[in-house]
Amino acid sequence: MSEKPVVALIEYEEAPDEVRAIYDDIMETRGIDWVNNFWKVLAHDPDLLRRTWQDLKRVMGPGELDPLVKEMIYIAVSATNGCEYCTYSHTASARAKGMTDAQLMELLAVVGMANETNRLSNGLRPPVDVKFKPR
Amino acid sequence: MSEKPVVALIEYEEAPDEVRAIYDDIMETRGIDWVNNFWKVLAHDPDLLRRTWQDLKRVMGPGELDPLVKEMIYIAVSATNGCEYCTYSHTASARAKGMTDAQLMELLAVVGMANETNRLSNGLRPPVDVKFKPR
Amino acid sequence: MSEKPVVALIEYEEAPDEVRAIYDDIMETRGIDWVNNFWKVLAHDPDLLRRTWQDLKRVMGPGELDPLVKEMIYIAVSATNGCEYCTYSHTASARAKGMTDAQLMELLAVVGMANETNRLSNGLRPPVDVKFKPR
Amino acid sequence: MSEKPVVALIEYEEAPDEVRAIYDDIMETRGIDWVNNFWKVLAHDPDLLRRTWQDLKRVMGPGELDPLVKEMIYIAVSATNGCEYCTYSHTASARAKGMTDAQLMELLAVVGMANETNRLSNGLRPPVDVKFKPR
Amino acid sequence: MSEKPVVALIEYEEAPDEVRAIYDDIMETRGIDWVNNFWKVLAHDPDLLRRTWQDLKRVMGPGELDPLVKEMIYIAVSATNGCEYCTYSHTASARAKGMTDAQLMELLAVVGMANETNRLSNGLRPPVDVKFKPR
Amino acid sequence: MSEKPVVALIEYEEAPDEVRAIYDDIMETRGIDWVNNFWKVLAHDPDLLRRTWQDLKRVMGPGELDPLVKEMIYIAVSATNGCEYCTYSHTASARAKGMTDAQLMELLAVVGMANETNRLSNGLRPPVDVKFKPR
Repeated sequence: MSEKPVVALIEYEEAPDEVRAIYDDIMETRGIDWVNNFWKVLAHDPDLLRRTWQDLKRVMGPGELDPLVKEMIYIAVSATNGCEYCTYSHTASARAKGMTDAQLMELLAVVGMANETNRLSNGLRPPVDVKFKPR
Repeated sequence: MSEKPVVALIEYEEAPDEVRAIYDDIMETRGIDWVNNFWKVLAHDPDLLRRTWQDLKRVMGPGELDPLVKEMIYIAVSATNGCEYCTYSHTASARAKGMTDAQLMELLAVVGMANETNRLSNGLRPPVDVKFKPR
Repeated sequence: MSEKPVVALIEYEEAPDEVRAIYDDIMETRGIDWVNNFWKVLAHDPDLLRRTWQDLKRVMGPGELDPLVKEMIYIAVSATNGCEYCTYSHTASARAKGMTDAQLMELLAVVGMANETNRLSNGLRPPVDVKFKPR
Repeated sequence: MSEKPVVALIEYEEAPDEVRAIYDDIMETRGIDWVNNFWKVLAHDPDLLRRTWQDLKRVMGPGELDPLVKEMIYIAVSATNGCEYCTYSHTASARAKGMTDAQLMELLAVVGMANETNRLSNGLRPPVDVKFKPR
Repeated sequence: MSEKPVVALIEYEEAPDEVRAIYDDIMETRGIDWVNNFWKVLAHDPDLLRRTWQDLKRVMGPGELDPLVKEMIYIAVSATNGCEYCTYSHTASARAKGMTDAQLMELLAVVGMANETNRLSNGLRPPVDVKFKPR
Repeated sequence: MSEKPVVALIEYEEAPDEVRAIYDDIMETRGIDWVNNFWKVLAHDPDLLRRTWQDLKRVMGPGELDPLVKEMIYIAVSATNGCEYCTYSHTASARAKGMTDAQLMELLAVVGMANETNRLSNGLRPPVDVKFKPR
């Protein structure tokens, strides 16, 4: 992709306090000492940055589903949407959480299959089976 | 959706032997006594029916990932693509494999979040962080 | 789908002259005596109706590609986008131009395959081979 | 993205008269002295170039909506579709029409939100409320 | 679409207090006496319901952009993604905020145009003009 | 795009025998002496590589539709999905099968038009005409 972002990256040093506090929380929550570029562009709108980070922290945090499973679902959506940044970043996150290459390949096999059958259904339009309707 | 499929449903009774054999394998593999409409439209091309079923059986069968996880990934892609038939059918499959409403809700929370951040990335285009590039 | 359009259908009888003239051209060009609903909603903006019809007439008219091939490309895009109306209408147009069920099934097999490999590529991101770059 | 276009760029100097006339109209209409690459690839089909430019000129010209609002809608769709070229070019156009970074950030906040709720709806499929149906 | 939601609608009467409080806020904020189905399905996950409502309230509330412009951007994304529920609901919201049929038609003309040129760009891949790159 | 694939390319020399056999079949089937990168990433999952290649070979091989038409349908879907790799690779394949620049331009004109009308339909939601419903 074109290496220049649409808005400049806001680095930690130049960030206003409210943004810095979020960068700090991102690094502390993830136990790392750097902030990835996605947050550095969102920082142009501190409120959007805060809401997005808090939602992500909540949604990707402890819940009904396994954290690695959630990262794989993120990859599935990102590959389907063709989002380059999200595909690289969440594949990295999933690997950090233990995803093996074999699991990534199987994940994408399911993603490819789903995209294929989604279109066969969209083109042939079989009626939804009554048995599939929630009771 | 419009209840009439683009091609007529080929019912078991009227299906040629090669199609019937696949219908039988679908029912036996799933331990059910009926075939859902998706296969009944694909049956217009026995070869497409066979390849799709064999791929699905293989991809959704035993592997590196848990069967329920694979159904949830299928739902994630189908909801992202807006495929009505696939969303209903795979939500039903996932439930048959034990997915609770709480898990479905969290799954969709991740799907929604991923679609949101995919677009924030596509619009702001942050460069992919070097640390995210595979070694 | 929900049977009520977002804007009311503008029927021939109630249509202003400039809209009627376009309806007449649509019927004459296609050699039929009715206008399909897509045009009846576009009629709320006579200019959009005119431009869209003229573009469609030009693009789907005589050119480098066979008219049926163009209808099939239209179906391929509509099934990929999950557009119900366009899938039904262009499948009907393609059939009117001679498309057989066998051709429709093969068309969708290609569409399904393309959607599958698009995602495998988006997820694994192989670099574009130099040999594929235009000279 | 891969820097080589699929078809060569047709520069002003080498362009046939009918293409040059359109390049001239693009520059005059926009009050600039250069033509962007999108038009230079479309020029391989002078008719497609003319129709696309005339439609764009008409659609993005004076109408019911504010010109800047239309550029923002263009960005919203381009970010949703992941079109890199369109995102950069229409973000530049919107800025030329006065869009501030604050407005861009809020625009993308809405785009992200819409993409998120679109998928929550696609996955949970709430029936369209009767009150939302046009009267 | 199939009229049965994937999870049952949680009506006000049967809703737990935390959900009722959000339903009350939705009605109060909008100055209406009913809650639309989207929230009634999200209610299966009170936290998802709260986060989504609070984000929507914030994003669609007072900001840099006009409220009606934001509803139109929402429609642009929903029509692009083919989300039936969102298209009907946000078209209704936009109308409640004063959108005329003429504005809706022009909005969709821009949306259609953007989707068209997005694909012409994706297929021909013109390099992003240096002049479009942010300084 | 970012030049590093998500998983390393598996070159012929280092490939296990089962992968080499598929690489050999790809080269022999296509009458070329090299394997493109798409297969080199799929090779991380020999079974996915085999199934995908066998399906592609079957789907893109002799059938009801002309081989070049099928490549053009592949391009139509890839441009619609914004898949860079697939757009370059199948445009190259289509050219190798005789597609002229004039045919490519007309193909994309249809693709652009379809994406435009798909969204006009999704936004205005005209009911599917009874005459378009399969008998």
